[in-house]
Amino acid sequence: MRLERPHRTERFGAVRIHELQRVIELDSGDAAMAGPRSRESLRVPSAQLRAIEQDMVIVVPCMNETRRVIEGVLSGVPHDCLVIMVSNSARGPVDRYEIEAQTVEQFCQAAERPAITVHQRDPGLAAAVKAAGAADLIDDEGLVRGGKGEAMFVGLAMAALTGRRYLGFIDADNFVPGAVNEYCKAYAAAFQLADSPYSMVRISWHSKPKLRDGRLFFSRRGRTSEVTNQFLNQLIGEYSGFGTEVVATGNAGEHAFSLQLGLKLRLAGGFAVEPYEYLDMFEQFGGVLDSPHQEVLDKSVSVSQIETRNPHFHDNKGDHHVQDMRMQALNVLYHSPVCLPSVRSEILDFMLAHRAIGEGDEPPRERIYPPVGTLALDRFCDMLTTEAHSLRQVPSDGGDGLSYAPQLSRWPRH
Amino acid sequence: MRLERPHRTERFGAVRIHELQRVIELDSGDAAMAGPRSRESLRVPSAQLRAIEQDMVIVVPCMNETRRVIEGVLSGVPHDCLVIMVSNSARGPVDRYEIEAQTVEQFCQAAERPAITVHQRDPGLAAAVKAAGAADLIDDEGLVRGGKGEAMFVGLAMAALTGRRYLGFIDADNFVPGAVNEYCKAYAAAFQLADSPYSMVRISWHSKPKLRDGRLFFSRRGRTSEVTNQFLNQLIGEYSGFGTEVVATGNAGEHAFSLQLGLKLRLAGGFAVEPYEYLDMFEQFGGVLDSPHQEVLDKSVSVSQIETRNPHFHDNKGDHHVQDMRMQALNVLYHSPVCLPSVRSEILDFMLAHRAIGEGDEPPRERIYPPVGTLALDRFCDMLTTEAHSLRQVPSDGGDGLSYAPQLSRWPRH
Ligand SMILES: Nc1nc2c(ncn2[C@@H]2O[C@H](COP(=O)(O)OP(=O)(O)OP(=O)(O)O)[C@@H](O)[C@H]2O)c(=O)[nH]1
Ligand SMILES: Nc1nc2c(ncn2[C@@H]2O[C@H](COP(=O)(O)OP(=O)(O)OP(=O)(O)O)[C@@H](O)[C@H]2O)c(=O)[nH]1
Repeated sequence: MRLERPHRTERFGAVRIHELQRVIELDSGDAAMAGPRSRESLRVPSAQLRAIEQDMVIVVPCMNETRRVIEGVLSGVPHDCLVIMVSNSARGPVDRYEIEAQTVEQFCQAAERPAITVHQRDPGLAAAVKAAGAADLIDDEGLVRGGKGEAMFVGLAMAALTGRRYLGFIDADNFVPGAVNEYCKAYAAAFQLADSPYSMVRISWHSKPKLRDGRLFFSRRGRTSEVTNQFLNQLIGEYSGFGTEVVATGNAGEHAFSLQLGLKLRLAGGFAVEPYEYLDMFEQFGGVLDSPHQEVLDKSVSVSQIETRNPHFHDNKGDHHVQDMRMQALNVLYHSPVCLPSVRSEILDFMLAHRAIGEGDEPPRERIYPPVGTLALDRFCDMLTTEAHSLRQVPSDGGDGLSYAPQLSRWPRH
Repeated sequence: MRLERPHRTERFGAVRIHELQRVIELDSGDAAMAGPRSRESLRVPSAQLRAIEQDMVIVVPCMNETRRVIEGVLSGVPHDCLVIMVSNSARGPVDRYEIEAQTVEQFCQAAERPAITVHQRDPGLAAAVKAAGAADLIDDEGLVRGGKGEAMFVGLAMAALTGRRYLGFIDADNFVPGAVNEYCKAYAAAFQLADSPYSMVRISWHSKPKLRDGRLFFSRRGRTSEVTNQFLNQLIGEYSGFGTEVVATGNAGEHAFSLQLGLKLRLAGGFAVEPYEYLDMFEQFGGVLDSPHQEVLDKSVSVSQIETRNPHFHDNKGDHHVQDMRMQALNVLYHSPVCLPSVRSEILDFMLAHRAIGEGDEPPRERIYPPVGTLALDRFCDMLTTEAHSLRQVPSDGGDGLSYAPQLSRWPRH
């Protein structure tokens, strides 16, 4: 893969946010063919991508997606990545999770690769989460809460048990397997180029096909993203004293981080999870509040933002949903202790104008969970592997002459 | 890349058509990680793909496509392939060819790779084609005729001057760079797996997004393809005595062949070019008519058909165009000397019913050109490189510290 070379970087304390880099080539060939270093672009040869992929988990949050779309997504994830699917699909008379798990298993058989699936509302998973010390995740029914952030939390905790060092998220509702492939390659390329072990990669898709007046239209950026990015940039600008547009990926569903970073992050619940990652980094490593993480401050955190080539072509869940997501982003922004009063009051104005809150109301708070790195992951592993009946590690045995070690182990290597 | 293993093969004389194989994984990793041979799938490690890509030309026929779409297509072609763009775009007050050539040049600069562009209606190209002995391609104005087949003919002749051994075609109007990448990888994978130096790969896209009642709809197969495939299958079935559905790629715009095969093929003009490739193989190597190509008969011809994962998402040129393409396919089928009377009469019925011809009329004949391998390619090279002023070989010099040899040479190595 070849990326544009980023020329500007904005700092927020120890957090270095690189300006958006375009993907120039999906596949830039082998190292052997490399010319001299280019001024314009950064080339990551496929062997280097591969090395990262072998060290990367791809967590796929999934909720009631079709078999065919899931299969397409799986086909796009590079072979060497380990897929962990966390599903919150309906388990009624038709057990959609069962269908999904079968889809994954059949794919893995054909592709001779391992994968792991689990259901978010599995009582055994809830027991494991509780045993690990994250009782906040549990709802009144005694199960892990629904929500995308919660699915990511579970995926992150499971990724920590694999011994792999990178984790990327890929939505299950993507219609373009080639885009999935590009996201994964972009993660790997950015990790390869990052100069800190604490690194994050966030995707901004090139365009999103939409229907408008019955015609197909390639719009850039979603509306939700625009609002989130604007307020995040304003927040940064208020500190530096210079206006900036550096943040282009506030809501990036497609993003990845090194586990060294990820295990320190506090994830938010629901759709607040992605924008909150920025805020949490600012809070923990931004130099505004005290931080116990001297090592991170010393090495700094690298955030890459990649504009991919493929259209982001996915299931459209409708407008209500978009409004919802936008407001969740603003809720966490508003309540962040690093948010300055001027930004806070503009957020209030915006929410009032959009009738998200009434006059005099405060935006609601979103749930914020403790860093996965603070959990008792060995207990999580024990309970998960013994109690979570929805957990599938495929292939379950070494049948068919294939031998895969079980992927989860109680000795996380981090 | 990992492909489904094909279980059935239909023979038409020396032409072996393999049943449609699905792409299982876009990226199946490295050889080092390979397990034992799977019964279900065929895995081509990336190093093997790379070796073929280094030996492959990608010809991009282009006519009035936008800059942005062209750039997306280029970004999807693997780095090691050599792109040759043959354009028939308008050169009016706004010279669209100039814009395209610039797009290619800028991309190549950023991506540090070579490419070649030429305009189909360049008088110097016409002179080269004439000098080479293919006067049939020239119209009343003394220029190379418009038409996709004609663009492919030019691309094939130019590919022969590069010394590369494989040639793949990629339309310039594809909105999904990841699909372009998949097509190229599928070509490379199928060539790697082919057991004959005379090999062809044809793509059947998984689905084609369409608008229907204002909703996006993923339809399988185009209508044109269905008709063409049906008659081609009927033709094969009449010879073998067994009904078959083996041909799924009669109109495949995305296809590739080894130059050893391609240089022997007679290409048809316009949109008849893709279906006619089947007919020409049947005519030349099918055992029905005499063939001077004993070596091909001995080694046989391998035709792979690959069902790709990505949606085929491209510019929709409208219905008239589709009707047109369908009829051109039927015209060549009808007039092929291997077409049996029963098939011929069904084609007539179909065309009458669709008002493509009147009662008692014969379908029109399409132009059929001589095999590129029979041309005087050295003369073609000399004239082209000296007379065709639209010809661009980028980078034109070794500036910027990059050194690329000129790609075209008068000593074709075939
Ligand atoms: N496991 C799990 N997955 C979820 C949950 N909510 C959403 N997802 C998945 O997360 C991914 C993104 O969710 P969407 O609802 O499509 O959100 P989006 O794509 O950002 O929003 P739109 O652009 O409006 O469609 C999809 O793969 C969903 O299936 C959840 O509660 N649990
Ligand atoms: N050089 C050249 N390119 C052409 C010519 N006609 C079409 N093309 C290109 O060939 C590719 C396929 O042509 P289209 O007209 O889109 O045909 P199609 O995609 O098979 O047909 P639709 O599915 O109906 O859009 C595109 O990249 C066109 O720009 C031609 O006369 N000369």
